[in-house]
Amino acid sequence: MARERNYVSEAVMRRMPKYYRYLTDMEKTGIERVSSKELSQRMGLTASQIRQDFNCFGGFGQQGYGYNVSELRQEIHKILGLHNEHHVIVIGAGNLGQALANYTGFEKDGFLVKSLFDINPRLIGMSIRGIPIHDVDEMENYIKENQVDIAAICTPKEKAQEVAERLIRGGVKGIWNFAAVDIVVPNNNDVVVENVHLSDSLYTLTFQMSGE
Amino acid sequence: MARERNYVSEAVMRRMPKYYRYLTDMEKTGIERVSSKELSQRMGLTASQIRQDFNCFGGFGQQGYGYNVSELRQEIHKILGLHNEHHVIVIGAGNLGQALANYTGFEKDGFLVKSLFDINPRLIGMSIRGIPIHDVDEMENYIKENQVDIAAICTPKEKAQEVAERLIRGGVKGIWNFAAVDIVVPNNNDVVVENVHLSDSLYTLTFQMSGE
Repeated sequence: MARERNYVSEAVMRRMPKYYRYLTDMEKTGIERVSSKELSQRMGLTASQIRQDFNCFGGFGQQGYGYNVSELRQEIHKILGLHNEHHVIVIGAGNLGQALANYTGFEKDGFLVKSLFDINPRLIGMSIRGIPIHDVDEMENYIKENQVDIAAICTPKEKAQEVAERLIRGGVKGIWNFAAVDIVVPNNNDVVVENVHLSDSLYTLTFQMSGE
Repeated sequence: MARERNYVSEAVMRRMPKYYRYLTDMEKTGIERVSSKELSQRMGLTASQIRQDFNCFGGFGQQGYGYNVSELRQEIHKILGLHNEHHVIVIGAGNLGQALANYTGFEKDGFLVKSLFDINPRLIGMSIRGIPIHDVDEMENYIKENQVDIAAICTPKEKAQEVAERLIRGGVKGIWNFAAVDIVVPNNNDVVVENVHLSDSLYTLTFQMSGE
């Protein structure tokens, strides 16, 4: 049965993967129980913020008793949708696209890269870790004939919006965009876009370094 | 002369690279002037938010006349510290480290990858795009003898904190961390850490896809 989900703010949403990450590490090191106070100290949050965050999902754990780490991790695992397997395709088999295809760290959470697509004839037909690189012209057909949950866009930024529109028309519901442009999606659409702007991150770093 | 900088919130700080990105694209397409209203529509912000953001830096542009795109871009370029050249080293020459070294897109903004470091004997001595891969044991010496402004950590997460501490002891002021762990830095330190958690981003995507 699905948990009741109250309105979740952007800030709470962005903290959920962080909880998952900390709880996964704690479980691995054999920690069985954690109070909101201990968890808050580890994560650099306040205990009341943690309780408020969890209340968005009906709350977990018991007053004065702490949280069972494995159970809490499992709940958040489900909230993040990680109980479903996600088939991923990567558009753009350049440096970053190849790095994503080579990285196996997401597989334990059910993310499987099934195919790459590129326009470069020298790359088409090759494979990376057994994952084939197809011609990007075959992308729509591939989506029609295969389960594709998430598409990672690793193209030059000039191509990203067009690629996104083709993916959306093909029925892809999740876009993980690495191109340095904000993908625009129709409002009435149930497509989710997550932009990873590495340059924004780097320039935030230098901004802070140059401040006094 | 340095611009006077008022207190800048996390949210404003994170929007500055986005302004820079949009203004760079607008300049490239030949747009010379833009009102805060036009800019807000392009960026999905409100015009008053843009004016408030800019006021943190003393404000730019003129009432009713709009901003000069090139000048505004240049001001933000400076605010982001991009008028300085940044020498970058990459720790961990795996998939992601190699992709960063191969990527030339940051060079136009003065980021130069000068060296990679790894523990793998099969990688040490090789080079990527002419950038040498050194033994990570030589990292401290390298930092002592060369200008290093930013270190990108692309190691397994188990090694990331230790590597960060060695970098900080060596005098590196900027850490761009790609390992799936939050780097902890002493409070009394003037080191800036920017964490890029790709898994957090991916799980935020599936969270939204699994919500109703």
